[in-house]
Amino acid sequence: MKERQYQEKQAQNLEPQEDGTLIEGRNAVLEAFRAGKTVDRLYVLEGCKDGPVMSILREARKQDTLVQFVSRERLEQLTGGKHHQGVAAQTAAWQYASVEEMLKKAEEKGEPPFLFLLDGIEDPHNLGAIIRTANLAGAHGVIIPKRRAAGLTATVARASAGALHFTPVAKVTNLVSVMEELKQKGMWFVCADMDGESMYRLNLKGSIGLVIGNEGEGVGRLVKEACDMTASIPMKGDIDSLNASVAAGVLAYEIVRQRLFP
Amino acid sequence: MKERQYQEKQAQNLEPQEDGTLIEGRNAVLEAFRAGKTVDRLYVLEGCKDGPVMSILREARKQDTLVQFVSRERLEQLTGGKHHQGVAAQTAAWQYASVEEMLKKAEEKGEPPFLFLLDGIEDPHNLGAIIRTANLAGAHGVIIPKRRAAGLTATVARASAGALHFTPVAKVTNLVSVMEELKQKGMWFVCADMDGESMYRLNLKGSIGLVIGNEGEGVGRLVKEACDMTASIPMKGDIDSLNASVAAGVLAYEIVRQRLFP
Repeated sequence: MKERQYQEKQAQNLEPQEDGTLIEGRNAVLEAFRAGKTVDRLYVLEGCKDGPVMSILREARKQDTLVQFVSRERLEQLTGGKHHQGVAAQTAAWQYASVEEMLKKAEEKGEPPFLFLLDGIEDPHNLGAIIRTANLAGAHGVIIPKRRAAGLTATVARASAGALHFTPVAKVTNLVSVMEELKQKGMWFVCADMDGESMYRLNLKGSIGLVIGNEGEGVGRLVKEACDMTASIPMKGDIDSLNASVAAGVLAYEIVRQRLFP
Repeated sequence: MKERQYQEKQAQNLEPQEDGTLIEGRNAVLEAFRAGKTVDRLYVLEGCKDGPVMSILREARKQDTLVQFVSRERLEQLTGGKHHQGVAAQTAAWQYASVEEMLKKAEEKGEPPFLFLLDGIEDPHNLGAIIRTANLAGAHGVIIPKRRAAGLTATVARASAGALHFTPVAKVTNLVSVMEELKQKGMWFVCADMDGESMYRLNLKGSIGLVIGNEGEGVGRLVKEACDMTASIPMKGDIDSLNASVAAGVLAYEIVRQRLFP
């Protein structure tokens, strides 16, 4: 069992290498940062603290990149060799957008902003399916957090069925502070939670952000507290909850329905 | 590329062995049939037509089991050895129910029947997520066809998040003839298709069967012709369609909404 878990963990950790682009070597990684590429995750050899590596860590801090210190064995396994010089960077397969671009898009269309905020969706198939839903429901963008969430990998792009070409995705450090900023601009936030009011009884019109929680744990406490409303999907069955991408679809289409029939 | 495709095909074909239960050997297979076990697929060695194998084929015909004639190499690969005696049977990881049981369940609850019919869902994750949705939307069962569709494997059970324990699934030879029978009992059928009327404008109350099509090709022509209504989900985006399990969720919850607010 122990061995099985270890293997699974390895398999998960190896995924970035296959799925996005892994850059190795000090110059290559530093250049990626300076060229403004989005680095989803920086891997640094444990105990490696010389000048060039410190420069890279400074760049990572500037861009608020997730840094992971790893063993030599792990780094060699990730990069498939010994030429990493103590650093490797997982760059995003897709370019991230800014929240401002989303608001601009809504304004250009003359529509009240409609955004999806995903509080830690971990399964790339769910993330892709939700971006697909966001596109078809007419949302102007999807906001994801930097930590504990799937990034825009090739798997996500495939599962989005092309929606990633059209629907901007922003990656932010702190969902709550983004929500507070957007509230200043007149947006309302509704989160999906079993304890909430039935979605059919809530007013979901106007400028709205739909917050979907993590597959296992739902919406985090701080994010939930920052929401104006909590919406529940009526459940008539025996089990606990819908699949996260299905729940996102059902809630998004309740918003679509309310927008269509004012 | 050719080799890649070949490998993928092999990998797919090998899945049943890992996922459900594969029984090999003439007596074991014949016993499985006679004990009333649901055999999802019977593998028979090409050219093998002696008495015992003909008895097995007769049982398979009685139960309308899918039969696949395979090479010796393939059969050895599937069973992982040479003890198959020319036959192997893929039994379902879960027990299938009958459509009658679903109708009885609805009657016991005093509710008009609400069934899902899946016209060829191939992805086991989608099938599991749809069974999960069926459970929570209060549907009385899910009907799937024998051919070109995922069966109830362990992957489906996992993706259903426990819903398979509660929501009956029936596997039928011909979806259209089942629909015709159910129409005689007063059921209506609505299928999901982009060309249809907006789901918000249809009357989806009463005894209803929701028909969801295959991931790539949608609902088949004959099944579509057997439907009373075609419902579309309003699409505001740039791409073609929602993920099949998301579409099933959105349509199912429009039915729930109409049932809640008559």
